[in-house]
Amino acid sequence: MNQSLPSYLEITETSGISISGFLKKNSYSKVFVLVDENTGHYCLPLVGEYIGEYQRIEIRSGEINKTLETCIHIWQALTEGGADRKALLVNLGGGVIGDMGGFCACTYKRGIDFVNLPTTLLAQVDASIGGKLGIDFNGFKNHIGIFKLPAKVIVDPWFLKTLPEQELRSGIAEMIKHALIKDINHLDKFKSINPEEYEWGPLIRKSIMIKNEIVEADPFENGDRKLLNFGHTVGHAIETYFLETGKPILHGEAVAAGMVAETFLSEKLLGLSKSDRGYIIKTIDSFFKRIEIPEPDWPKVLANLDQDKKNQGKSIEAVLLSRPGEAQHSVTITKEDVREALFFYSAR
Amino acid sequence: MNQSLPSYLEITETSGISISGFLKKNSYSKVFVLVDENTGHYCLPLVGEYIGEYQRIEIRSGEINKTLETCIHIWQALTEGGADRKALLVNLGGGVIGDMGGFCACTYKRGIDFVNLPTTLLAQVDASIGGKLGIDFNGFKNHIGIFKLPAKVIVDPWFLKTLPEQELRSGIAEMIKHALIKDINHLDKFKSINPEEYEWGPLIRKSIMIKNEIVEADPFENGDRKLLNFGHTVGHAIETYFLETGKPILHGEAVAAGMVAETFLSEKLLGLSKSDRGYIIKTIDSFFKRIEIPEPDWPKVLANLDQDKKNQGKSIEAVLLSRPGEAQHSVTITKEDVREALFFYSAR
Repeated sequence: MNQSLPSYLEITETSGISISGFLKKNSYSKVFVLVDENTGHYCLPLVGEYIGEYQRIEIRSGEINKTLETCIHIWQALTEGGADRKALLVNLGGGVIGDMGGFCACTYKRGIDFVNLPTTLLAQVDASIGGKLGIDFNGFKNHIGIFKLPAKVIVDPWFLKTLPEQELRSGIAEMIKHALIKDINHLDKFKSINPEEYEWGPLIRKSIMIKNEIVEADPFENGDRKLLNFGHTVGHAIETYFLETGKPILHGEAVAAGMVAETFLSEKLLGLSKSDRGYIIKTIDSFFKRIEIPEPDWPKVLANLDQDKKNQGKSIEAVLLSRPGEAQHSVTITKEDVREALFFYSAR
Repeated sequence: MNQSLPSYLEITETSGISISGFLKKNSYSKVFVLVDENTGHYCLPLVGEYIGEYQRIEIRSGEINKTLETCIHIWQALTEGGADRKALLVNLGGGVIGDMGGFCACTYKRGIDFVNLPTTLLAQVDASIGGKLGIDFNGFKNHIGIFKLPAKVIVDPWFLKTLPEQELRSGIAEMIKHALIKDINHLDKFKSINPEEYEWGPLIRKSIMIKNEIVEADPFENGDRKLLNFGHTVGHAIETYFLETGKPILHGEAVAAGMVAETFLSEKLLGLSKSDRGYIIKTIDSFFKRIEIPEPDWPKVLANLDQDKKNQGKSIEAVLLSRPGEAQHSVTITKEDVREALFFYSAR
């Protein structure tokens, strides 16, 4: 394994000094900072003075606002603020801010630079690596978007202290995923963590290195990058279902449920042992409560599987585990398989 | 000069056979064809049978529909048609179809392949080379977009026979521009052309080679690619003005007016000789009638200069001619300069 940090990424507990240094090295005509009502209140005070002169663009928080309408608001704010091609957009927030702000920056006047300062554990270990940008469209997650790397990503574990505990769990789901597909030793570290008191730095670094190794080997997701979708085939279908019913759940909660379902399918279809299945699911369960998905609505969840971006033609594809720390992508599964998995998930 | 055709581009009078061969070499899951009411009627019958099975997406023609609303329609049609990441979008039409269809393809599920079959002279010599994609936003031209090369461009001069004569003039404006900035011999060919009867193949090839040479040397417009904006600083400002007043003019008409204005400025600011100025403007005039821009509205035209994507900070930048066939980019001009140029243009 050749695990290192991405060249554009820095992990530091003094992100203010880091962004200030970056701005000094680059001569941007104007700086814009994208926040939501939470990061504007809790995070911007930690870095604002280091950025110096900037214009603030505020959007409402939540996946439900990761839409074209919000992009229009951002593009308008850039236009009215006089952003030219040498302007910079700093995205201060979680995955929604980073994905959507990045997309808006890349498409504004055919592309201006952007910097991500991820403020959630989820965004720090996941969204900020690999250049996937985008927004939801007609209820489909990340349906419109592009691939583009940020000019800089500054990961500051200090921001996590501003985070509610359930938001931390969302990040833990992706970190567990990293362990399951690539490095099972990483999983053991999650035993007996108290999320609110934990010093996240070292685990964040390890997770970023695992993700980066995969992404650098396959930036456009033609092969092994698909491994990062473990838990996401079923997870996205569940997440979309809850978004459509107007009771959105956290991405990490959906992924945790998806990982349980897909661990079940790994035993059924790829011969993962029963004891490994048990160990993996027990670890996931120690962080995530079971989500209630009413059985009459399962057809809606199953219908969402058809829109998965990983699908080729009519078949549904998933990432499954052959054993802990080792996964296979592009495994064809059926809706009947997923129905069984939902049954397993709900019946526990 | 190292002028050649772009590797992804083919000039042929049998585009049907060409697209059919391309589709056989690549295994796309589904093919979508984007047309407007004109190209659906006049052009699709010429290639449809060669494409085989496809789904048609129709939008309304015209720059006025190069908007996010139309993109939403296209993204929805792709979604409802079941386009996965291996789907192909064929853009059959002029610059609006190519720019907007390309943008929609590049952002659908983070990017599917697209092929451009430009059906106007303007699109054949201009929009199809260099990967500039985008849409208008709040009245600003190509304000939202990205850089991405098509999988294939097939230029078929045969399509020009379906074109009204004034649409041909639009393309001629860009071809004159290519001559003025890079190869003045190219300009002489335009003497005594009857656009409707002319065999365009060789001149199209020359224009594409000039543009391609410039674009390949500077794909992201950090330097000499800006030369292609000759006539466009003032031209875009005029085009936007007419779009906003609800009486849109053709892009080529705006560029022709812009080239006259900027040729005037080339004499004023860069020492272009009076006789060269006269010769150049006479050639432009032989294809383009003067457009009436009411003097009380000039401030609106001047205000549009501030949103030019080429600007850095507050100054307005233009491409001017040092002599015929040779240009300089990033020349700072003032609104007063442009006001004088509008006066010169209108007073002739």
